[in-house]
Amino acid sequence: MQRWSKLFIPTLREAPADAEVASHKLLLRAGYVRQLGAGIYSYLFLGNRSINKIVAIIREEMDAIGQEFLLPTIHPKEVWEQSGRWTGMGDNMFRLKDRKGAELCLGMTHEEVMTSIARNELRSYKQLPQIWYQIQTKFRDEPRPKSGLLRVRQFIMKDAYSFDIDAAGLDASYDAHDRVYRKIFNRCGLEFVAVEADSGAMGGSQSQEFMVYTEAGEDLIASSASGYAANLEKATSILSPVEDLEATSDAPEEIHTPGFRTIDEVGAFLNTQPHHQMKTMAYMAAYTPGTKEAEKLGVLRPVVAFLRGDHTVNEAKLSAVTGGELRPMTPEEIADVFHAPAGYLGPIGLTGVAPHPKKPGVIVILDKALEGRKNLIAGANKAEYHLRNVTPMRDFKPSLAADIRNVIEGEADPIDGSPLRLGKAVEIGHIFKLGYKYSESMGARVLDQNGKEVTPIMGSYGIGIERILTAAIETSAAKNGGEAYALPPTIAPFQVIVTVTNIKEPALLEAGEKLAADLTKAGVDVLLDDRDERAGVKFKDADLTGVPYRIAVGKKLSEGQVELLDRLKNETADVAVPDVVHALQTKLGV
Amino acid sequence: MQRWSKLFIPTLREAPADAEVASHKLLLRAGYVRQLGAGIYSYLFLGNRSINKIVAIIREEMDAIGQEFLLPTIHPKEVWEQSGRWTGMGDNMFRLKDRKGAELCLGMTHEEVMTSIARNELRSYKQLPQIWYQIQTKFRDEPRPKSGLLRVRQFIMKDAYSFDIDAAGLDASYDAHDRVYRKIFNRCGLEFVAVEADSGAMGGSQSQEFMVYTEAGEDLIASSASGYAANLEKATSILSPVEDLEATSDAPEEIHTPGFRTIDEVGAFLNTQPHHQMKTMAYMAAYTPGTKEAEKLGVLRPVVAFLRGDHTVNEAKLSAVTGGELRPMTPEEIADVFHAPAGYLGPIGLTGVAPHPKKPGVIVILDKALEGRKNLIAGANKAEYHLRNVTPMRDFKPSLAADIRNVIEGEADPIDGSPLRLGKAVEIGHIFKLGYKYSESMGARVLDQNGKEVTPIMGSYGIGIERILTAAIETSAAKNGGEAYALPPTIAPFQVIVTVTNIKEPALLEAGEKLAADLTKAGVDVLLDDRDERAGVKFKDADLTGVPYRIAVGKKLSEGQVELLDRLKNETADVAVPDVVHALQTKLGV
Repeated sequence: MQRWSKLFIPTLREAPADAEVASHKLLLRAGYVRQLGAGIYSYLFLGNRSINKIVAIIREEMDAIGQEFLLPTIHPKEVWEQSGRWTGMGDNMFRLKDRKGAELCLGMTHEEVMTSIARNELRSYKQLPQIWYQIQTKFRDEPRPKSGLLRVRQFIMKDAYSFDIDAAGLDASYDAHDRVYRKIFNRCGLEFVAVEADSGAMGGSQSQEFMVYTEAGEDLIASSASGYAANLEKATSILSPVEDLEATSDAPEEIHTPGFRTIDEVGAFLNTQPHHQMKTMAYMAAYTPGTKEAEKLGVLRPVVAFLRGDHTVNEAKLSAVTGGELRPMTPEEIADVFHAPAGYLGPIGLTGVAPHPKKPGVIVILDKALEGRKNLIAGANKAEYHLRNVTPMRDFKPSLAADIRNVIEGEADPIDGSPLRLGKAVEIGHIFKLGYKYSESMGARVLDQNGKEVTPIMGSYGIGIERILTAAIETSAAKNGGEAYALPPTIAPFQVIVTVTNIKEPALLEAGEKLAADLTKAGVDVLLDDRDERAGVKFKDADLTGVPYRIAVGKKLSEGQVELLDRLKNETADVAVPDVVHALQTKLGV
Repeated sequence: MQRWSKLFIPTLREAPADAEVASHKLLLRAGYVRQLGAGIYSYLFLGNRSINKIVAIIREEMDAIGQEFLLPTIHPKEVWEQSGRWTGMGDNMFRLKDRKGAELCLGMTHEEVMTSIARNELRSYKQLPQIWYQIQTKFRDEPRPKSGLLRVRQFIMKDAYSFDIDAAGLDASYDAHDRVYRKIFNRCGLEFVAVEADSGAMGGSQSQEFMVYTEAGEDLIASSASGYAANLEKATSILSPVEDLEATSDAPEEIHTPGFRTIDEVGAFLNTQPHHQMKTMAYMAAYTPGTKEAEKLGVLRPVVAFLRGDHTVNEAKLSAVTGGELRPMTPEEIADVFHAPAGYLGPIGLTGVAPHPKKPGVIVILDKALEGRKNLIAGANKAEYHLRNVTPMRDFKPSLAADIRNVIEGEADPIDGSPLRLGKAVEIGHIFKLGYKYSESMGARVLDQNGKEVTPIMGSYGIGIERILTAAIETSAAKNGGEAYALPPTIAPFQVIVTVTNIKEPALLEAGEKLAADLTKAGVDVLLDDRDERAGVKFKDADLTGVPYRIAVGKKLSEGQVELLDRLKNETADVAVPDVVHALQTKLGV
C-alpha cells in the first residue's frame, strides 16, 4: 500500500499547449512523465511504476523461452562496421567520440553486439538454439520527435535474438516469439492485431508487426473481415478490371498538353479517367559502399517507377525491390535522365545514365497494376507534350514488374476479396526472420552434426515498453472522448485507489485505512488517497491517474457501504464494506 | 528451476591474460560477463541474473523511504550549464551532438535533471520532504578503464536525491539513507565499513562512503580499533611531538646545497631528519568561469602548499581548502612564481603573481603539522641553496593553515589514539549532504510556512550495483586464494545447484529432477545441472558460478543420500534425501 499524502504525483488541470495526442496530454496531466528535451522524457513515480509492471510481465514470459542478458549502451564503431551498418544508419544514430578520439555510438538495436557474442562463444550445433534477450534503453536521433512517448529519442525496448542451426530451427524460434508476444500483449490488456510487415533496414525474409489501432499511430494497416491484416508496406489487393482506351494508332502519339502537368489536369483536358494514365516517379537509390548491391549497381543510381494514374507509390515496397535508400531526384538529375521537365515525364526513350562506371542505366520498375494494360497516357519526356497509345512491354521494357503501390480502402483483400479497411495504428512489437545477414557479415560459425562449419541463422524480436503504455492510454482515451482513460489493471501503476473523501472525519479515515490494508493483504496493489484535500480534487486526480478501480469511502459508510467505480466499464456500484475485497478480486480475476 | 542443458553459460578453463583482479578473472571464467570494448561489458545470463537480484533488494528497501523515477540518459547541455558543471566535468563526461547540432551529454549523475524537475514542480513546504531515486545506467569516460567491472565506462547505479525545507530535514533524509544502505549491504551479504568522506566535486558538507576492504580496491581507508574509519581524503591523526632543530641565528640563513634537491638528499647532506624539513608543493588551481570562486580568485591561480618533509600532500584535502581543480605547475609557471628551479623552492620571498587582473597573489597553504614548528630547513628559492632557521609565521605568512596531508599507518587516531591501519577498499555506496549547491544554482524555490520563498536543501545518495557484485566476489576470493569464490545466496544467480553426476543413470536423473522440483516448490532458486557431461566438468563449472550451495546426486543415492556442499563454509555433508529441503532452508535462513 502507498499513501498519496507521501507521494509526488504532480497532476495538471490543463495539458501543456504543445501536447498533441491524447496519451501525451494525459501522461503529462497525470504526472507520469515530464519532458527534459526534444524527445527525451523523465518518468516520474506513476510512469516508472507502470513501466516496471510492463517489464515484469515481459520478463516473466520471456524467461519461458530465452535467457536475459544486459548489453552495453555505448558500442565501438568496429562492430557496426563489421555488419556494414555504421554508415547505413545515417543521422538516426547518435555518434560520439571518447577522450582518446575513438568513435562510438549509442545502441539503436543490438544485432551487432549479440552477434559478436555469438561469434566469440558459439562453436557447435549442440549449443543451438539460443534465444537471448534484454530489457534496455535504446537511442534514435529522430528528426522530428513528437507525440509524447510515441516518437522519442530515448526509449526502452525488450529486444531478443535467436540463433539456430537451420531454417526449421528459426521457424521454431520465430513461432515461440509469436506465441509469447501474444501472451504478453494479452496480459497487458491490449487489443492488438498481428500484421505482415516489411523487414526494411533490418534485412531478412519474414516479419510480423503487432499493432494497436489508434488515431495517434503513424503507421497505416490494411485489414478485412477475412482476417487479412498487413501494414501498408506489405498489403496487397485484387484490383477490379478497368477498361483500356481505344487505340488511335499502333504506336505512341504525341499530344500537345501545354501547362497540363498533373494527372487531374491531363485527365480533365483529355476527358479520360486517372486509371487511363501512367504516373512517373523519379528517385535516386543510394547503396552502401562496400556492399554487394553497391558493387553491382554503384553507390547512386536512378530509379524510375511507373504506376497507374490513380495509384500512389509505396516507397518501402519500391525500396524492397530496388535495394538502397531512396530519395527523390533533384531537378538536375531529372533533366539528366529524362531530358524533360517534371510534369511531362514518361517511359519512352529514357536515356540510360552512368552514375557509376561499372553498369550504366536506369532501374525501371513497372507496378503490377500496369501489366497487361494498353493505350495509356503518359508524359512524352518533352515539355508540354504527353503521349497516348502507350503500351508497356511493346513500347518500353521495364527492368521488372512488381507490386509497388499503396492499397486503397475498399479494394478486395487477397484472401477472399473482402473489402480492405485502412486504419492508423501504433507498433508495439515486431518479430523478424533475419536470416544470415549478421551472422554471415560478422563471421559467426558453428560446426554442424557432420563437423562442417556452417553459419547460424538468426531472428530478431522487439517490444517497445513505452508503446504498450501509450497504446493502452490511446485506446482507452478514444473510448472516452480523449480526455479520460483507464489502464488495464495489469499495467496501471496501481490496481485500485481508495479515496477517503474527508480525512477530517475519523470514521472515514479509519475505514479507508482498514480497507486499503485488507486489499493489500489480499494481494491487490492499492493507493490510499489520504490527502487533506476536497473530495472533488481527489476524484479528479484519481481519474487522471488512469487507475481502473476507485473505492470512495464517504457518506454512505454510515450505511455500511462504499462506492466502487469501475472506470473500464464506467460503472458505479455501492458495495457493502465486507464484500469489497471479493468484489475487487472478481473484477481483477484473481 | 532452470536447466543447465538449456542455458548458455560459457565457462572458461583459463582467465584471459589481461584480467588483473580476482573478480575480473572469475566474472569472465564463470561466463557472467564479456568485454565489448575498453571499460564496456556485456552481462550474460548469470551476470544479469545476479544484477537483477541486487536491484530487487535495493528497490525493495528504497521503496520504504522514497519514490522510484527513471530519468533520461541523454541530457541537454543547458541543465549542466545551469549548475556550472558542463565545463567542470571535463573529459570524464561523454559529450555528443544531435543531428541538429545541439549539444548533449551522457548522464554521469543526475543532480541536474532531478533538480530541474524539483524546480519546475515543487512549490510549497507542504510537498517536502521528497526522496526520489532511480536505478539507471551511468557513463563516465574513464581515462584508464581496468579491473573488470571495478572501473568501467558504463555502469548501473541506484542514485537518490532528497529535497528538504531545512537542515534538520536533510539530516533526517540523510539518516534514512544511512539506515537503508546498511540494510541493503547487509542483505547483500557484504562486510562493509562506513567511513567519513570528502564530498569532492559534488559540493556539500557531510558525506559518508560505504566501503568493502579488498586488495582490488583503489581507495585507501584509515581505521582503528576505536571504531574510527575515514577515507584518506578525510582521515586525520594526532602526531607525536617532534623536536625542532636549534636556532643558529634568529633569521633564515642560506646554506649552499649544490645538487641536493630531494628531502633525502638534503637530510643526508645536513645530517637532519626529514621532519626537520619543509616540503614545497606547487600547483595551479583552475576555477570554473562564471562561478563565485572564479570571480574572487580568477580562473587560474597559483597554489603553493608546505608540508613536513616526511609527509605527503593529499590533493583532495588541498582542493577542498583552495577550491578549483588542481594540477601541478609547469616549469614556466614555477619560474614565474618562485624565480627558482624545482628542488630549491621554499616559502620566503614568494613573488605574488597576477594571473587575473582582480586580485593578484599566490594562495599559500601551510599544513597544520607545521604550525608551532621552528628552525626548519626549506628551499631558498635560489638554485643550489636551502635555508635554515625557517620559522612559519615569523618568516612568512601563509594564506591559511589546514590539514592537507595524508595520514600514515601507525599514527594515533583522533578518537582515543589507537594506531591507524590503512587498507585498500572499494566503494559500494556514498551518501552526501549537498546543501544548496544545485537548488540555488538552478533556481529551485518553495514557499515556507510563512509564505516566504526559500531554497530547498538537497542530499544525494548512490550505490554502485556492479560494485556490490565485484566486492562480494573479491572478498570471497581473498579467502579462497583468489581462484575460487562463493556469493552470498541473496545475490548469487542461483541459491543452489543440483548436480546429477551422470544423467545416463535414470535413477540419478530422476532423483535430481525431483529434488530440484521440491526445492523450487519450497521457494529455493535452483539450477539443475542436467548436462550430459562428466561429473568432474560439472563440479568445476558449478564452482565457477559462485553459487553457494551444491547438491550432488551421485553414487550415495543407493544409500538414500546426496552430498551437500556449503561453499561459503567449505563444508561437505551427506544428507538423507528427505532432509535436503529442510537442510537448505536452514542454511538460507528461510
